[in-house]
Amino acid sequence: MRALWLRGGRLKVVDAPEPSPAAGEAVVRVLLAGICGTDLELVRGYAAMDGIPGHEFVGRVEAAPEAVWVGRRVVGEINASCGDCDACQAGRRSHCARRTVLGIRDRHGAFAERLTLPLSNLHAVPEQVSDEAAVFTEPLAAALEIQQQVPVGAGDRVLVIGDGRLGQLVAQSMSMTGCTLTVLGRHQSKLALLAGRGIRTAEAREGGSLPPERSADLVVDCTGSEQGLALALRLVRPRGTVVLKSTYHGGSHVDMSAVVVDEITLIGSRCGPFAPALDLIAAGAVEVRPLVHARYPLVDALVGFEHAVRPGALKVLLEP
Amino acid sequence: MRALWLRGGRLKVVDAPEPSPAAGEAVVRVLLAGICGTDLELVRGYAAMDGIPGHEFVGRVEAAPEAVWVGRRVVGEINASCGDCDACQAGRRSHCARRTVLGIRDRHGAFAERLTLPLSNLHAVPEQVSDEAAVFTEPLAAALEIQQQVPVGAGDRVLVIGDGRLGQLVAQSMSMTGCTLTVLGRHQSKLALLAGRGIRTAEAREGGSLPPERSADLVVDCTGSEQGLALALRLVRPRGTVVLKSTYHGGSHVDMSAVVVDEITLIGSRCGPFAPALDLIAAGAVEVRPLVHARYPLVDALVGFEHAVRPGALKVLLEP
Repeated sequence: MRALWLRGGRLKVVDAPEPSPAAGEAVVRVLLAGICGTDLELVRGYAAMDGIPGHEFVGRVEAAPEAVWVGRRVVGEINASCGDCDACQAGRRSHCARRTVLGIRDRHGAFAERLTLPLSNLHAVPEQVSDEAAVFTEPLAAALEIQQQVPVGAGDRVLVIGDGRLGQLVAQSMSMTGCTLTVLGRHQSKLALLAGRGIRTAEAREGGSLPPERSADLVVDCTGSEQGLALALRLVRPRGTVVLKSTYHGGSHVDMSAVVVDEITLIGSRCGPFAPALDLIAAGAVEVRPLVHARYPLVDALVGFEHAVRPGALKVLLEP
Repeated sequence: MRALWLRGGRLKVVDAPEPSPAAGEAVVRVLLAGICGTDLELVRGYAAMDGIPGHEFVGRVEAAPEAVWVGRRVVGEINASCGDCDACQAGRRSHCARRTVLGIRDRHGAFAERLTLPLSNLHAVPEQVSDEAAVFTEPLAAALEIQQQVPVGAGDRVLVIGDGRLGQLVAQSMSMTGCTLTVLGRHQSKLALLAGRGIRTAEAREGGSLPPERSADLVVDCTGSEQGLALALRLVRPRGTVVLKSTYHGGSHVDMSAVVVDEITLIGSRCGPFAPALDLIAAGAVEVRPLVHARYPLVDALVGFEHAVRPGALKVLLEP
């Protein structure tokens, strides 16, 4: 089958072997797959991958251990867990010590004609949800993970740093909590998308109209950069919380003295719940269509990746 | 009055002006004061201090706005807050934006014959508590702050990294929660003190009997070092918590990618509640006497500081 292969930091469209499903796994034909910041980090060398990347997808089940699933349109949770280790037994399956992760760790991903995942990872997509919307289920679930980790309520002063792919979804999901939300970004066009939804925005530049220092109850850093984290630590109030919601490449220099003196809580945040994400997309409560900037056939995946790294780019989709 | 002055990183015993109490403040004659890791960091340049350090003390009230306090033996909370700012109004008085901090920020400290503090900061010391025990109230309160921030219960796997002044108090207070506790340290004599109380210990060295990686529910880093924090991040389990319980000098290089992928929570921890600390000392539930390694008259404060930086040293007390 046709697939995009990553080896030694180089991408190449190849003819790859068909994936063979293990016990309990389904074979899914990929309809659309999204390029995410983590994919760009993988190309930059994060996790030293040798395989097929891609973990945001919508597809159709071609084969499954339960016949009722065959033909269904699905999205899929990306962590395939063992069910037996301490983490699994404690209910933290996305932290399974022996997990494979679609397109990231020990499992070929969605930039291919077909992929395999355990049937228990799949969620059927409602009829009225388009492929272009369904493909956002995985990143929206990741955005919703924040609210599983930190209670956010009416009146809380929340800042989101970053107006990119993930920042957009975090901002939209946060705006539904009734919190007092401001998004800091560097791209007029991306901030305008949020402003169009009634979300307050500000330019994340020195001399810009940044919120007062030490004023936010919660700051979500969606930049994955040392600078974004440093800004978050300047803007969060004493005893406030900073959520790290991105892939950080390499180490970061952090002023831990400030974290101690101000008793800041830093929380790393990764994958989230699919069911509410799919519900929000189906209800139209989160609008994802304006986030699609381009769509390329899989054979032109390298052009798609070049598009995705442009400064103003939002979501780029690949179609096998 | 006689006092120890810190300026430009240099300590000197001087004849300083008597402190004059502001409205609502008491004058306290210092009986004993303890040298803490933060004092050593102040000498190394942390916070660029020009004044009298010292924030762990027991003393006797010489003058007070309420006559009943005069003559009482007291310990004192170190943050003097304004009562009006957002943090104070929200009940976070130790994070008051306009606070002064005894011996640390804009308020002369306890390495002197007398100090001033708001009357509302003082706690009377029960008769049966010796001066040498009472002087540990402030650092024990700081140790207890952890349990205000993170619920710790029976069966939780807790690691304390650091067997020094603060690590000893954190370990003793943690051992009362019923958690499964191990203390990692580098000094046989200090670890032996803990082992003598039935606390499990291990040498924090490569090749030592370190606990398994990614196994602890909670790790408390009492080292204030980049290495201690890196070890904490290796030993904590996914979705576990690392408490930073020390003064970090300068920035730290941290692998934020691991924090995100494993959804670790990092929490800075500073001052804590005096009342339960004093109760535990009065009840003998926390034993502090073995932690006193030396006692010097204030006039020999520089010798005392030299003693306090020796690798094996625990608490060094100064007596004005």
